[in-house]
Amino acid sequence: MNANARAYRLGDLNNETKFILTTVGIDTPDMLLDDVPDGTEVALVDHNENQQLMKILNKMRITHVIDHHKFGDLKTSDPIYLRFEPVGCTVTILTKLYRENNFAIDQKMAFLLTSAILSDTLHFRSPATTTDDRNILEYLIPLAKIDNITSYANSMFEVKSDLKGFSTRQIHFLDYKQYTFNNRTWGIGTGETCSMNKILERKDELLKEMNEEKK
Amino acid sequence: MNANARAYRLGDLNNETKFILTTVGIDTPDMLLDDVPDGTEVALVDHNENQQLMKILNKMRITHVIDHHKFGDLKTSDPIYLRFEPVGCTVTILTKLYRENNFAIDQKMAFLLTSAILSDTLHFRSPATTTDDRNILEYLIPLAKIDNITSYANSMFEVKSDLKGFSTRQIHFLDYKQYTFNNRTWGIGTGETCSMNKILERKDELLKEMNEEKK
Repeated sequence: MNANARAYRLGDLNNETKFILTTVGIDTPDMLLDDVPDGTEVALVDHNENQQLMKILNKMRITHVIDHHKFGDLKTSDPIYLRFEPVGCTVTILTKLYRENNFAIDQKMAFLLTSAILSDTLHFRSPATTTDDRNILEYLIPLAKIDNITSYANSMFEVKSDLKGFSTRQIHFLDYKQYTFNNRTWGIGTGETCSMNKILERKDELLKEMNEEKK
Repeated sequence: MNANARAYRLGDLNNETKFILTTVGIDTPDMLLDDVPDGTEVALVDHNENQQLMKILNKMRITHVIDHHKFGDLKTSDPIYLRFEPVGCTVTILTKLYRENNFAIDQKMAFLLTSAILSDTLHFRSPATTTDDRNILEYLIPLAKIDNITSYANSMFEVKSDLKGFSTRQIHFLDYKQYTFNNRTWGIGTGETCSMNKILERKDELLKEMNEEKK
């Protein structure tokens, strides 16, 4: 484990992530740009399917993949570090790595890690939640110094589910992935909200947008 | 990590492995037979390529893969536990798992683990040896209660490289794998020995055997 690494993002942040970063006071990571030198080492976190990877990653050298999804179609020419566990959130694995390697977790990092587990497991309401996720969150909360975890989780979810300011097209592509089943390409987009009616009111424009995309 | 599991082998043991088991006094694991119930859970250790797997494994449910090779073409329908590290020996990873999960390593198990690292890294002469392999071996030796590690390693290598009793065909398939490159199938067999001349004397019969297999 090499502690000297830098976080990059591959796309725009959703409102929940922006809220978390603002609350803890951490700057938004830079976007990974395609002027990155060929062969730069990269660790993929929370994603691994080739079809989801941007072209930029093809010219980088993947050395680590840490993920809780199914292993996809990634090919490497050499053996690399893979750490996949069927848990609710990749941060549960990342926190294990911190502990196994005796790396300190400061308050801001603990806050980010806590927020990720709350988000991915919907504060344990997701059926993908495991005992490991629960134990790791319990370990992180005191380090993150969050007094009322339920209230913090709820404010995260409220921010995430507020889709008022979003265009139909933005909702469509907020969390959008393409998959191939039976030789046909399927696009699946997820827009989470606590105000179901507000979304259902926009059903017609959403269907129109989806049909446009299919063309 | 579920501590309640049983070791099986997929093929015949080489002389080195037999020597190790006899020395420490552990019975040879049973061969995995094809009457194993459908859907039995299995952890693959030190191998992962589908083309190397026996038919038996196709009807089992793979839940864990722990390996130091390149990830191959394994497909699973669900997310599973994968732990791949680019180290010289898979036992280096296994020993980390013991420690991370606070499982005790008794003398016999430490002896097996030590022997595996010595074998795979050729007692650190293999270029694939990493700092992790060295550190883990250093940790294991006192637990294994082996006084003279160099002398023990040498006796292992002598046993392994004694190919006197083996037929040409047996040498051919001692450690044999098939790979596909450029749409052609290549078979690669490894016979290790300290007496190079003894093998070279059998070059003609080995080539004849290889040509037979190609037909």
